[in-house]
Amino acid sequence: MNAGEASTGGALRRPLVAVVMGSESDMPVMQGACEVLGELGVEYELKIASAHRTPDVVREYATRAEERGLEVIIAGAGGAAHLPGIIAAYTLLPVIGVPVKTSALGGVDSLYSIVQMPTGVPVATVAIDGAKNAALLACEILALKYSELREKLIAYREAMRRKVLGR
Amino acid sequence: MNAGEASTGGALRRPLVAVVMGSESDMPVMQGACEVLGELGVEYELKIASAHRTPDVVREYATRAEERGLEVIIAGAGGAAHLPGIIAAYTLLPVIGVPVKTSALGGVDSLYSIVQMPTGVPVATVAIDGAKNAALLACEILALKYSELREKLIAYREAMRRKVLGR
Amino acid sequence: MNAGEASTGGALRRPLVAVVMGSESDMPVMQGACEVLGELGVEYELKIASAHRTPDVVREYATRAEERGLEVIIAGAGGAAHLPGIIAAYTLLPVIGVPVKTSALGGVDSLYSIVQMPTGVPVATVAIDGAKNAALLACEILALKYSELREKLIAYREAMRRKVLGR
Amino acid sequence: MNAGEASTGGALRRPLVAVVMGSESDMPVMQGACEVLGELGVEYELKIASAHRTPDVVREYATRAEERGLEVIIAGAGGAAHLPGIIAAYTLLPVIGVPVKTSALGGVDSLYSIVQMPTGVPVATVAIDGAKNAALLACEILALKYSELREKLIAYREAMRRKVLGR
Amino acid sequence: MNAGEASTGGALRRPLVAVVMGSESDMPVMQGACEVLGELGVEYELKIASAHRTPDVVREYATRAEERGLEVIIAGAGGAAHLPGIIAAYTLLPVIGVPVKTSALGGVDSLYSIVQMPTGVPVATVAIDGAKNAALLACEILALKYSELREKLIAYREAMRRKVLGR
Amino acid sequence: MNAGEASTGGALRRPLVAVVMGSESDMPVMQGACEVLGELGVEYELKIASAHRTPDVVREYATRAEERGLEVIIAGAGGAAHLPGIIAAYTLLPVIGVPVKTSALGGVDSLYSIVQMPTGVPVATVAIDGAKNAALLACEILALKYSELREKLIAYREAMRRKVLGR
Amino acid sequence: MNAGEASTGGALRRPLVAVVMGSESDMPVMQGACEVLGELGVEYELKIASAHRTPDVVREYATRAEERGLEVIIAGAGGAAHLPGIIAAYTLLPVIGVPVKTSALGGVDSLYSIVQMPTGVPVATVAIDGAKNAALLACEILALKYSELREKLIAYREAMRRKVLGR
Amino acid sequence: MNAGEASTGGALRRPLVAVVMGSESDMPVMQGACEVLGELGVEYELKIASAHRTPDVVREYATRAEERGLEVIIAGAGGAAHLPGIIAAYTLLPVIGVPVKTSALGGVDSLYSIVQMPTGVPVATVAIDGAKNAALLACEILALKYSELREKLIAYREAMRRKVLGR
Repeated sequence: MNAGEASTGGALRRPLVAVVMGSESDMPVMQGACEVLGELGVEYELKIASAHRTPDVVREYATRAEERGLEVIIAGAGGAAHLPGIIAAYTLLPVIGVPVKTSALGGVDSLYSIVQMPTGVPVATVAIDGAKNAALLACEILALKYSELREKLIAYREAMRRKVLGR
Repeated sequence: MNAGEASTGGALRRPLVAVVMGSESDMPVMQGACEVLGELGVEYELKIASAHRTPDVVREYATRAEERGLEVIIAGAGGAAHLPGIIAAYTLLPVIGVPVKTSALGGVDSLYSIVQMPTGVPVATVAIDGAKNAALLACEILALKYSELREKLIAYREAMRRKVLGR
Repeated sequence: MNAGEASTGGALRRPLVAVVMGSESDMPVMQGACEVLGELGVEYELKIASAHRTPDVVREYATRAEERGLEVIIAGAGGAAHLPGIIAAYTLLPVIGVPVKTSALGGVDSLYSIVQMPTGVPVATVAIDGAKNAALLACEILALKYSELREKLIAYREAMRRKVLGR
Repeated sequence: MNAGEASTGGALRRPLVAVVMGSESDMPVMQGACEVLGELGVEYELKIASAHRTPDVVREYATRAEERGLEVIIAGAGGAAHLPGIIAAYTLLPVIGVPVKTSALGGVDSLYSIVQMPTGVPVATVAIDGAKNAALLACEILALKYSELREKLIAYREAMRRKVLGR
Repeated sequence: MNAGEASTGGALRRPLVAVVMGSESDMPVMQGACEVLGELGVEYELKIASAHRTPDVVREYATRAEERGLEVIIAGAGGAAHLPGIIAAYTLLPVIGVPVKTSALGGVDSLYSIVQMPTGVPVATVAIDGAKNAALLACEILALKYSELREKLIAYREAMRRKVLGR
Repeated sequence: MNAGEASTGGALRRPLVAVVMGSESDMPVMQGACEVLGELGVEYELKIASAHRTPDVVREYATRAEERGLEVIIAGAGGAAHLPGIIAAYTLLPVIGVPVKTSALGGVDSLYSIVQMPTGVPVATVAIDGAKNAALLACEILALKYSELREKLIAYREAMRRKVLGR
Repeated sequence: MNAGEASTGGALRRPLVAVVMGSESDMPVMQGACEVLGELGVEYELKIASAHRTPDVVREYATRAEERGLEVIIAGAGGAAHLPGIIAAYTLLPVIGVPVKTSALGGVDSLYSIVQMPTGVPVATVAIDGAKNAALLACEILALKYSELREKLIAYREAMRRKVLGR
Repeated sequence: MNAGEASTGGALRRPLVAVVMGSESDMPVMQGACEVLGELGVEYELKIASAHRTPDVVREYATRAEERGLEVIIAGAGGAAHLPGIIAAYTLLPVIGVPVKTSALGGVDSLYSIVQMPTGVPVATVAIDGAKNAALLACEILALKYSELREKLIAYREAMRRKVLGR
């Protein structure tokens, strides 16, 4: 076995991560993921596609994600939040789900719709509105392969630590 | 405008209703729908297809449902229950969702995953484990078009009424 | 069997759908249904009647709905939301329930009160505050019989699809 | 003003309390009410009538309850539990609602459907499966008028007190 | 047996109902009860006493309520809402509990704390923030004994009915 | 200031802890507290008294607890679980509340009724059915004063640690 | 056995209580604890340390708390609120947990994360945002040992009682 | 940048995945992860360590996981389930959390305690009792680097697909 996807230093300059959401109304939450990916120097692409309104776009996108060089997919959705699970059904790439807070139920509907996946098709779920953590998780996954990223994560945690301690 | 789908007396002898579920483990619940459809003399077809494990089968099935003559689709699922919503994304036929009770959360996860659909793609949701009511709702819908069925529904309600009253 | 209710092109010009609510305070939510029905060219009538404050008005209205030519009833209510279920008890027309969001419990009370109907009397439940989807579901049901409406639903979905894709 | 309903010693020998439920399946819970009424010597009548399956029976029963001499109505129901609220819509007698435990949601659906009544039509709600307390509450209400019952309630509490203390 | 508590026309001019709350912060909710009692011409007294901060005041008040001529006690509380239950522990008068909405949990904590009473000591629970219905329930109870009040309730319902119907 | 309650070696031989519950049905849960107290050599007394059925016994007991030499009170209750809060209202001793699991709501009613106390009267709440932890918490509190107990807690933790590690 | 920790009047002048929180954003809630400790004349120290971002700081702090003379630790946290439990894992001092309200779930996530501790490591949990009660509970615990504090608590309760009664 | 962790064919023969749980009582759930890892030929190590009872073992284990060659950590816990979050605090490896079902709250406590992590320290959460999906997610992550595993995942999905279709 060898690390077929491994690549040289330029790797992070093409999009390795996709940030997908069902509608522009999820952008205020999902841009948290973009910010963190930006800070850590990981290229990403943004995609708006709805599991219910444009199911074939989602299917096409998820099916081709791997051959297009993407390695992790972050998907945010609210309510009956099917987007992460449906993407996961069409790819073997790790899919990270971000439950978006909802007006009526606070996002517990989104959370259950994303996390309670049946055996066979996992979605790595983060907190309600936890888009930043979705990006960090994507980076932890990528850092297994791209050691440069590991250094950046160490620096990120150290900065975070100092901030808590007020230094 | 004319009622293109309307048909003569034999109509109910071909499947007008599909009863779909993601795995055989949902059968004990979903057979409640089959029983009621059987009692009311409405032909149905049974389909096992999973939104997550066989997404293309679901897509193919939902996309072709209308041209195959189906008029209502009943879909049952548990947990992150995406099956009804994904079927609804691929057809304009009315889709009735049955949230299946789950061991950990009692089915509230199934319910939220099915009922909280975004604007544009409705799923007609019934009670947790409410497969019988899903079938009755399908019949009420069909009875708008097939008057024979309306008589059967009246008789069904009357029988139910008598049973409550112990007559 | 024949499609007794089927009708010519003028059918959609008399009210086929009723939009019922228990008080005027539900109007901001329920007008979403009216808007969608308007967009799709389906005549509807608006009715304010409360299952608790004017039970006989509800009963009379539901009992006579079918003979008056209505084919689908949309009913919205909040809290101990009995309106859709009580209407369903008095008619064999499909009843679509819209759980209205509540101040204290976010609408989970409305949702449970509407969706958890006992076997025999189904209510097709949509999302909390999902009045627009209630209207779309009504149209999907009517489109089984009125083919003109089917074309409009196709166009509606296509417009929705384009909007998601930003085209 | 005078106490029109007040009556002599024989009053408790005609049914002052109705114990109503939607189906025989609620009997194991609701017989708790019957037992307590029996212990306290209050005549009651048992009625099976469903808000959804026999709405006109419920309406008739509730409308005529007062003229038939009933003074308190206890109604038990589960799921989308509309029975107590609908009875309350048709009478000015105090209605006590007993939310019956449900298999999927533990009775929180029943509780919300009964207790969250809109302004204008109250239901006096007791605990999930709290039929015995419904009966005690009915007796407390009747004891305002029938002093004999007050003595019995005092004795009941005293017996209960002794039982806790193991005397 | 005779109706010992029955009284002549002047009865409603002394306080028959107590409206109790644990702190002044519950007043905005509980004044709904006062308004309705005022509208229906039922004298009430207002009492601020806390089950936790002034337990002996609550005990003294509840113990003496009956001898002071009170016939129904309405108690509102939020959070770990013990006030209605503790009052009920000290009196045989009917106690009506009003769960007050809370900032964190929306009042579901108040509701459970009030409605889930153990067998032997019932509290008649109304909706979250349902103080008006608490007052109406109190009046329904009193109307069993004071027929004047019954007329007022009929008029109240009729006015409510007209308001719904927009007449 | 001096440690007035401090005492010589024999202190733990008189009851320092009370284990109180509303009825014998709570014993299977609450005996977990007794076992741990027994293991750690802390004398306790067992008391059955109900906040609702024997309120004056609870009041008397709580009021006199301190003068009788008790230092911590553990109280378990289920449903509308008022016992810990009411005890806390009558004493300044630390009160530890154990929410007992309930059949319908799993104990979330007990938990909310115990933990959501208003400002001024705290109850130290442990997990649902967490009677053992209630006892350990009581010992941690007492160990601030009785150093012998501190040693026992260290040994208890060490044994627990070894058990996890399988040594 | 003797009260090793007992001390003379100056004891309350060194910090006996720590108020710990994971980030400055919890300060608006946690300062409620500081206010109460200040009012009652109990010295405390404030510590910002995160179970997730600075785990070693938390560990070090908790491990050394006892030898530094602290006797009670109050810890507030929101969401997956691990801070109180992790502190409790590293010390035998009583740890009081304050669940901080969260935007999406109202703090029920914080509450469950704090109160549902496994057997062996208790956390004394107070209400959501109940920082003031955490401080009062800390004082009740300390008052077992420092009798001066007991007098202050009596005065605090008396002032509270008078405030409720409007005196 | 180069893929420092990449390795030759033997890589999967040393443990790349850790399956950690707080006590042996979680084994019936967590062995689902072991089974899937076994099926897919991924070596794993099993570790029992508790965030509360053996915090230093957890800390040591998490801190050294990366240098020992582990690449993904699966951690299961129930109730106030801190294990996954605390491991994540001590490592930059991806941590997958499995909320274990609990007797009282069905595992919603475990779920909230694991998924609602604060910004900076993500845990990839799967369904309640979703240990099998945790293993599949671990494999999806590893397959980014070890292409052999990718083939196995494709075969696994295909087998799953066939099973659903009954072929």
